[in-house]
Amino acid sequence: MAASTGQNSVKHMKWWGWGVEGVAFHFDDKPKFAPFVKKAVGLDLTGEAPPTSVDFSQLVVPAAKISDDLMTQLKGTVGEEFVVTDDEDRVVHTYGKSIRDLLRVRAGDFPRVPDVVVYPGDNDEVQSVVDLAVAADAVLIPFGGGSNISGSLEPPPAETRTVISLDMGRMSKVLDIDEDSGLATVQAGTQGPDLEEQLNQRGWTVGHYPDSFTHSTIGGWVATRSSGMQSDKYGDISDITRGVRVATPGGPLALRPLPSTSTGPSVREMILGSEGRLGVITEVNAQVHRLPDERVILAYFFPTFDAGLEAMQEISLLDSRPSITRVSDARETGFTMATAKKSSAGQAILFKVLKRRGWDLDKMCLSFVGFEGTKQHVSRQQSEVKEIVKKHGGIGVGKGPGVLYDQKKFDTPYIRDFLLDWGGAADVSETAGPWSRLKDLYYNTIQAANDAYEELGIDPGWVMCHLSHSYHTGACLYFTFAFVYGDRDPMPLYDKVKSAIQQSFIDNGGTLSHHHAVGTEHSAWLSQDISPAGSKIMKGLFAATDPGRNLNPGKIC
Amino acid sequence: MAASTGQNSVKHMKWWGWGVEGVAFHFDDKPKFAPFVKKAVGLDLTGEAPPTSVDFSQLVVPAAKISDDLMTQLKGTVGEEFVVTDDEDRVVHTYGKSIRDLLRVRAGDFPRVPDVVVYPGDNDEVQSVVDLAVAADAVLIPFGGGSNISGSLEPPPAETRTVISLDMGRMSKVLDIDEDSGLATVQAGTQGPDLEEQLNQRGWTVGHYPDSFTHSTIGGWVATRSSGMQSDKYGDISDITRGVRVATPGGPLALRPLPSTSTGPSVREMILGSEGRLGVITEVNAQVHRLPDERVILAYFFPTFDAGLEAMQEISLLDSRPSITRVSDARETGFTMATAKKSSAGQAILFKVLKRRGWDLDKMCLSFVGFEGTKQHVSRQQSEVKEIVKKHGGIGVGKGPGVLYDQKKFDTPYIRDFLLDWGGAADVSETAGPWSRLKDLYYNTIQAANDAYEELGIDPGWVMCHLSHSYHTGACLYFTFAFVYGDRDPMPLYDKVKSAIQQSFIDNGGTLSHHHAVGTEHSAWLSQDISPAGSKIMKGLFAATDPGRNLNPGKIC
Repeated sequence: MAASTGQNSVKHMKWWGWGVEGVAFHFDDKPKFAPFVKKAVGLDLTGEAPPTSVDFSQLVVPAAKISDDLMTQLKGTVGEEFVVTDDEDRVVHTYGKSIRDLLRVRAGDFPRVPDVVVYPGDNDEVQSVVDLAVAADAVLIPFGGGSNISGSLEPPPAETRTVISLDMGRMSKVLDIDEDSGLATVQAGTQGPDLEEQLNQRGWTVGHYPDSFTHSTIGGWVATRSSGMQSDKYGDISDITRGVRVATPGGPLALRPLPSTSTGPSVREMILGSEGRLGVITEVNAQVHRLPDERVILAYFFPTFDAGLEAMQEISLLDSRPSITRVSDARETGFTMATAKKSSAGQAILFKVLKRRGWDLDKMCLSFVGFEGTKQHVSRQQSEVKEIVKKHGGIGVGKGPGVLYDQKKFDTPYIRDFLLDWGGAADVSETAGPWSRLKDLYYNTIQAANDAYEELGIDPGWVMCHLSHSYHTGACLYFTFAFVYGDRDPMPLYDKVKSAIQQSFIDNGGTLSHHHAVGTEHSAWLSQDISPAGSKIMKGLFAATDPGRNLNPGKIC
Repeated sequence: MAASTGQNSVKHMKWWGWGVEGVAFHFDDKPKFAPFVKKAVGLDLTGEAPPTSVDFSQLVVPAAKISDDLMTQLKGTVGEEFVVTDDEDRVVHTYGKSIRDLLRVRAGDFPRVPDVVVYPGDNDEVQSVVDLAVAADAVLIPFGGGSNISGSLEPPPAETRTVISLDMGRMSKVLDIDEDSGLATVQAGTQGPDLEEQLNQRGWTVGHYPDSFTHSTIGGWVATRSSGMQSDKYGDISDITRGVRVATPGGPLALRPLPSTSTGPSVREMILGSEGRLGVITEVNAQVHRLPDERVILAYFFPTFDAGLEAMQEISLLDSRPSITRVSDARETGFTMATAKKSSAGQAILFKVLKRRGWDLDKMCLSFVGFEGTKQHVSRQQSEVKEIVKKHGGIGVGKGPGVLYDQKKFDTPYIRDFLLDWGGAADVSETAGPWSRLKDLYYNTIQAANDAYEELGIDPGWVMCHLSHSYHTGACLYFTFAFVYGDRDPMPLYDKVKSAIQQSFIDNGGTLSHHHAVGTEHSAWLSQDISPAGSKIMKGLFAATDPGRNLNPGKIC
């Protein structure tokens, strides 16, 4: 978007979808894609492409409601050019990028749009805006990259008070690297690529690569308990975040960077996942690592998903922990292969060999394992993994698919916008559970989604899954689901499928989300996940720190 | 102690000191000890040993104040024999084992003793006692092994309400091991040795060895954010604790065992370190590991503490993380050698060699590094560490000292009781900070302690230190201090030295405690550590969850 005001250095995604203007998914160079989609969700892509219905001028955006006093105060605090009330900017800040968000934004469904978007420039300005919002009894919603898919960004529909969206995009610098300690001080609005670029220049990496990497911020990662593709090595954001600064209603919170501490209930771990309800994260002291000597991602095929899961579990117990453990189920493997540009001759030969070995290619599962460290360490990891893969009937297929995965790993969300144009809805739900429950969690969740499809008369509906992020005691399972709604209202259909999946998570020993936060989308399951007493404690925390419900109210619980 | 009631299966430490009756420190077989002590703190141990002044019958124990109603209710809940009001049991439950506690208990200084000790048998009984305490507006203080040194166990001196000490000692079983996930369900009152015994029998270990191991419980570890000697490999208790059950005023809190989760501010991390202020921990889902194939502790000498610190930092960055990284400063090295039974001929030769190499033996520092895992992994770790040690001018001295350390690591607290008999006070303070601050943290803290001694006219006063627990971004520094008070009141002397050390921690980028909790002893530094806004959030949490201040009031903040 081209905003004409002073905040225009701040990058935003398309108001109507994922990513940057001009970049979109197309399948002309992917011969297997159309047949795959026809089979998967019954959608015929051979006809003429529908237009993308994204004419901003047709939307009716509610007028901004904000007092002159508050406008004057905000402008006095951050500067006139950084207080914005234009419609497009306000719409960009209304939602995240869940399928519910995309459906609503495309339909011009805006029960409540922020009244003003404020772009602060430093910690003090953020603190002043927090103080102003509380004093004026306004609602303040922090905004990072806007990639959230759990409803963490939207104003409560019935909110009558002024709603301020606080965009952190101007605060995008690595302020300092303590090279002795491996600690970088980073402004919260720094987006993934900017962060890595600034660190890489000096030989460092934070090693955090969530799917949203290209359009999410470190502050957003902290606020939602994000996890990245290499978290097996680098840790989740809760491990990476050693210190943090937050503008709270009680004044600036400063948790100094510490390797570990014994200071009672962890305030650091209260800020993690707090989605703006305790304050606005302004700075993060992130653990950083020297860029590794070697970094390799190898691909493997397993004859079944069970075999792949068992191999990943065994790999997670290795003394020489790999950086990525990932295995897709057969459906996701099919999807991945359908988005490839062309199959190599080598692939055809490989599949012949596997068939001859008795593999059912429809059950075959693609896996990626990442290796990082010194040359010797990487070679050791590889040989240990090779042995485990072999034990579980798998076969290594080299670096090729891994390189492709590494390059394309952030592109999937574009496919969702593409599907929407064609009347198809897709979203994701992910969970984590103990190893002992993982197969139940997988099979019962697939079943739950399919039962929901059947009940809704959706035939065929799609659900696929991969394991990512292995821990000593369990792993993350990441489900993607999609269906064609055609002329029907997609929202109740989505609700039904999403709910079935979420309930299956809880019923099978999983959590409501491994790394996508609670927001409004998952809050119905919070009490089941952490027990009613757990919800009560969390509600107590919010009530005590934000009695006026000024800080992103209605999220989490 | 020999209690005559039904709870007598519950093991308690001596009411007047550390450990079990009949075990005490003696130095007849340690020829270097007396000269060392003379030099270190000016105490002459050659005279006749003073008697241990521990005649319980001479103490004046305040009478129990509890209503008949509450007594009846408690007995109805846990059974008559598990509700105890006898004086010795109540005194045992009054304090932990800090030097302040030991001085007071020996002096019969009891401003407030619990009125009743209750021994519940299961989760439901604990919940009922919590509910009864809240309903009766009584104060409830959970009690594990009683080893706390931060004042977390004592009733507030001016407390006028009935004080209940809830002893978890009957709940001491490993209830279940989920062998597929590496998760043990353990009752909170299980003490270290009982825990490891039950796990080892089935081939598992939790790998958590705090100094208090022999007399502390897993519930206590969680309640204080404990760390153990092998935490470099097994993680601190916050890593080990994957799920937890807590009896809270809002009902039973059940956090299911999960490898990771994205459910907002972490309630699990609020329970960790909560010291009974949010409820009573009844069960822990602990991450457990298969007993390692190999376990070796090797000893090294470094020419200076700086060289040792630098080596430990470099070791912490290895891909093949060792299980223990520890280096003592020159003073602690001297202390360790003074408690040895006899020096070997080999040692004398070694020291000659080192002298010839130009080492100043008074600056020499002893280090232990632990190696665990498969045979290959251990051998790899050893050779990588060997190289780093060499680079920093250190020298390996084999397994001998490590075996000794492994056997004697839990005995140090007995020396404190011994010293007390002789009019000497000793205690510990530990912290953690980033690597970049660690030398300042060390030298300035030593200086702060020595300045305090000088101001107090204590000459010589003792302070020594070791690094334990390395992390990617920093490490723990563990200080032990001791002085002879003779005829003076030791308490203000202790306060002065302790305060100087704690303030130095904060002033030099360290935390108030790495693994000993806040309690009452460290709460004066909480706002400086986590900033006033952090304290405010924590106070808000406690006020919201325990508005009547029934749960261990006065601790943390």
